[in-house]
Amino acid sequence: MRVFTFDTTLRDGTQGEAVNFTSDDKLLIAHKLDELGIDYIEGGWPGSNLKDKDFFARARELNLKHARLVAFGATRFAKRTVEDDSSIQAILEAATPVVSIFGKSWDLHVDRALGVSEEENLRMIAETVAYLKAQGREVVYDAEHFFDGYRANRDFALRTLEAAKNAGADVLVLCDTNGGTMTGALAAICADVRSHFNGMLGIHVHNDCDLAVANTLAAVEQGFAHVQGCMNGYGERCGNANLTSIIANLELKLGHTTIGRERLANLTAAARYIAELANLPMRNDQPYVGRSAFAHKGGVHVSAVLKDAATYEHVSPKTVGNRQRVLLSDLSGRGSILYKLKQHGLEERLDDPARRELLDRIKHMEFQGYELEAAEGTFELLVREALHPGLQLFEVVNYEAITRPGGTTATVTLRANDGVHSATAAGSGPVNSLDLALRKCLATLYPAIAEVRLTDYKVRVLDAKKGTAARVRVLVEWSDHRRTWATVGVSENVIEASWRALIDALRLELMRLGENDPSIEKVVEDYCWGV
Amino acid sequence: MRVFTFDTTLRDGTQGEAVNFTSDDKLLIAHKLDELGIDYIEGGWPGSNLKDKDFFARARELNLKHARLVAFGATRFAKRTVEDDSSIQAILEAATPVVSIFGKSWDLHVDRALGVSEEENLRMIAETVAYLKAQGREVVYDAEHFFDGYRANRDFALRTLEAAKNAGADVLVLCDTNGGTMTGALAAICADVRSHFNGMLGIHVHNDCDLAVANTLAAVEQGFAHVQGCMNGYGERCGNANLTSIIANLELKLGHTTIGRERLANLTAAARYIAELANLPMRNDQPYVGRSAFAHKGGVHVSAVLKDAATYEHVSPKTVGNRQRVLLSDLSGRGSILYKLKQHGLEERLDDPARRELLDRIKHMEFQGYELEAAEGTFELLVREALHPGLQLFEVVNYEAITRPGGTTATVTLRANDGVHSATAAGSGPVNSLDLALRKCLATLYPAIAEVRLTDYKVRVLDAKKGTAARVRVLVEWSDHRRTWATVGVSENVIEASWRALIDALRLELMRLGENDPSIEKVVEDYCWGV
Repeated sequence: MRVFTFDTTLRDGTQGEAVNFTSDDKLLIAHKLDELGIDYIEGGWPGSNLKDKDFFARARELNLKHARLVAFGATRFAKRTVEDDSSIQAILEAATPVVSIFGKSWDLHVDRALGVSEEENLRMIAETVAYLKAQGREVVYDAEHFFDGYRANRDFALRTLEAAKNAGADVLVLCDTNGGTMTGALAAICADVRSHFNGMLGIHVHNDCDLAVANTLAAVEQGFAHVQGCMNGYGERCGNANLTSIIANLELKLGHTTIGRERLANLTAAARYIAELANLPMRNDQPYVGRSAFAHKGGVHVSAVLKDAATYEHVSPKTVGNRQRVLLSDLSGRGSILYKLKQHGLEERLDDPARRELLDRIKHMEFQGYELEAAEGTFELLVREALHPGLQLFEVVNYEAITRPGGTTATVTLRANDGVHSATAAGSGPVNSLDLALRKCLATLYPAIAEVRLTDYKVRVLDAKKGTAARVRVLVEWSDHRRTWATVGVSENVIEASWRALIDALRLELMRLGENDPSIEKVVEDYCWGV
Repeated sequence: MRVFTFDTTLRDGTQGEAVNFTSDDKLLIAHKLDELGIDYIEGGWPGSNLKDKDFFARARELNLKHARLVAFGATRFAKRTVEDDSSIQAILEAATPVVSIFGKSWDLHVDRALGVSEEENLRMIAETVAYLKAQGREVVYDAEHFFDGYRANRDFALRTLEAAKNAGADVLVLCDTNGGTMTGALAAICADVRSHFNGMLGIHVHNDCDLAVANTLAAVEQGFAHVQGCMNGYGERCGNANLTSIIANLELKLGHTTIGRERLANLTAAARYIAELANLPMRNDQPYVGRSAFAHKGGVHVSAVLKDAATYEHVSPKTVGNRQRVLLSDLSGRGSILYKLKQHGLEERLDDPARRELLDRIKHMEFQGYELEAAEGTFELLVREALHPGLQLFEVVNYEAITRPGGTTATVTLRANDGVHSATAAGSGPVNSLDLALRKCLATLYPAIAEVRLTDYKVRVLDAKKGTAARVRVLVEWSDHRRTWATVGVSENVIEASWRALIDALRLELMRLGENDPSIEKVVEDYCWGV
């Protein structure tokens, strides 16, 4: 069956506690969702806030290739005409081909929240839908709280759907707004509604019981061919149904077509891109697209997976654009580093003591709290240093970062082949200042270093219980416009940890500039990203 | 139905990429799970690593009140006797009343991973179970990869269960080890197994398709009364079934009994305690127990919830020990601060300009990136300062933190009523050093300040794209042995941001020491923790 995907990351998703998008973010996300093959993109509620109004004004230049843009709003206010309702007029001004209108299905809400009669509620639904249809819009009718409403008063709930349907709604969407419905009960209600209504039915559920994906699939099983959700499951309280998981399950497990198998390979990249714009860390354990989704840690699992991936992988990670990873948490892991070095012909370039020293350094660093998998730059540096044991591009003589009210000044002194270099810089913090001073120092010797930019900076406290005396891990991301890499530093002193990551990143870049060795890049890629 | 809960946080949970427990952590968690009313606690795999062996040796002093401790292991090695199998002997040495043994159900694994004949596999299952039964253990048999095995070769998969059952296994547990089974297919297989086997059946699933909770409930619907999972859904790849959600759904939605309604009120606290020991941030959007699970942000939702909580809450948060929260993301939020001040009789103590100034300060701070809800200490300080506009306990003259290789030294100079005070301290980082110097300085004036301890320290980069020049938010947690509170600082300079949080925390404690005002504490509690 062709199942239509309706993404509401930009509307319902922004109700999530930590989710905030600028208009620029929203335009970039809409573009990405279109590229992914999503059918409907709900952009916002133009009648509710200025930011969403602004988004729709700018969205006209989006030039979507596949998706249809949707503006969201409520049925008209009680005792007002649709023409007089500024919120309905705002929806029309958004000038989208599709509108999504929510109305009340639950008598509790009609009585308590709206304070109108049931008959007036039905008129509000019918008149709003009919008016928007008359204006040439495709109308998606969201039956808010449908499942709670059905349990409280089945007859009234069905009559609200009838009102929307008779007024010309193109899709009737049953919403589990509070997310409290169990899968079995939801499936039975969907079956009952299906038996009363022909045409396109849709499902919109929340994850308050950890069942949102299952509930969406249960509705599809009842012939519902329109599924609403948010990328990465963003949304109010516990989030909306995770559209990322729903798409993968429908395509790979249930034989339905959504974005198509070819675009499915972009799913992981799209999910991570949106997390990046939301400035939210991607959940590592997120099904299908998380960094750990195909990561194997247990010794038994690792050895079986290396023999045959199907033994511990339910689908091939490539189908969703993800990668298999083998975690190095024990000795078998260090065995696999050697295996990898060998595979790429690097092991022969290391003699016995050098090999042992490399493994010991890695072991010691992991013990201190380094995470080399997340810091492929640091790992690459270790391998390069093992291959070139004598090479010393520069030596740190001293560094100093002084913070006083108003700012930080840093001074860095290095010794290189041609003597001692020193530089001072004032930046917006100790790490920024050290970064500036360090590159100023090196740039006279190695002008190419000016290309390198620090692009992200993360701090994690390793033993939280110790307060400010705890060890911290600093992860720094870099780019030289051709590629990005990360380096890591660990110390009880956040400045010291950052300094180590800074130094490693620049030392690595200098080694790379001096030697183009594809086999090193290959072993790093294998080690940090996949088997 | 009485459904038995089997927690494997300490065994399968530790296969999660970021999950690492010390033996101490494991003992504390076992104690907490027992207190929560969990029936079985799987403590580890004593045959696989020394840490788990150590845990079981120490676990004898645990003195569990309700739960039964479980040691995990595999069926005997191929072509060996159970008596010769060191791994089986390690299970017995763990001396637990219950053992959990996994065997192969999938012909692919028997052939590829084990490399033995199907008949030998059946003997391995039967002999291991029979031997452990003869040693007086309750035996839980985990049929690894049962669902994949059933699809590949139903007859063989059922025969492995039969082998375990005939050898005396007390529970047969069907495992969806790769987490790839859809809910409908899983329910049908469970029904088929139920029709072949009497006695206790169990379910153990992974979350690779975002369906683990739904799949567990589907098995319970087929009469399976033993459910396995991990607290907070920890576990390999995408995690095990989230036992926290399962317990809440079974108790509150499906009429079953697990830990009982009374202990259910401890669910949130237990989940957060375990996250704390795992040193993993609790997912805010986690169903039932997350901080956002009952948080309302949208204006429509907030006003409806304030009228009647049932309008947007599927259960009362109190049933699981969680709280309702109203998020202050817009002007309506600031309205609710006033409402709260009024409610506690504080508004009358503020004149018009003072009230306006308080709201403006809050608005300005939120705009800068402060999050006052997470920092009740900072909010309390703002309210106290508004109530006592003239009060100035000390003034910062200067501070300085100098980091060089080897460590940081900080100097703090304050002006108080009796003159200027200065102190210098060397700590393990700039924040630690500033904290030490600041308290040294204040302790001469206010000896009670020595009681205050910094207990946690978190840094978040607010605009990641700007690298080290990005604004950061520092959240610091404090305790004075009677209560804990958090303060927050925002700046482009991580030291400056930390300094602000340090100063606010101590200023607050001094104000508290000078004045015991329960109405202030009440308004802070309402604002930061609930409606």
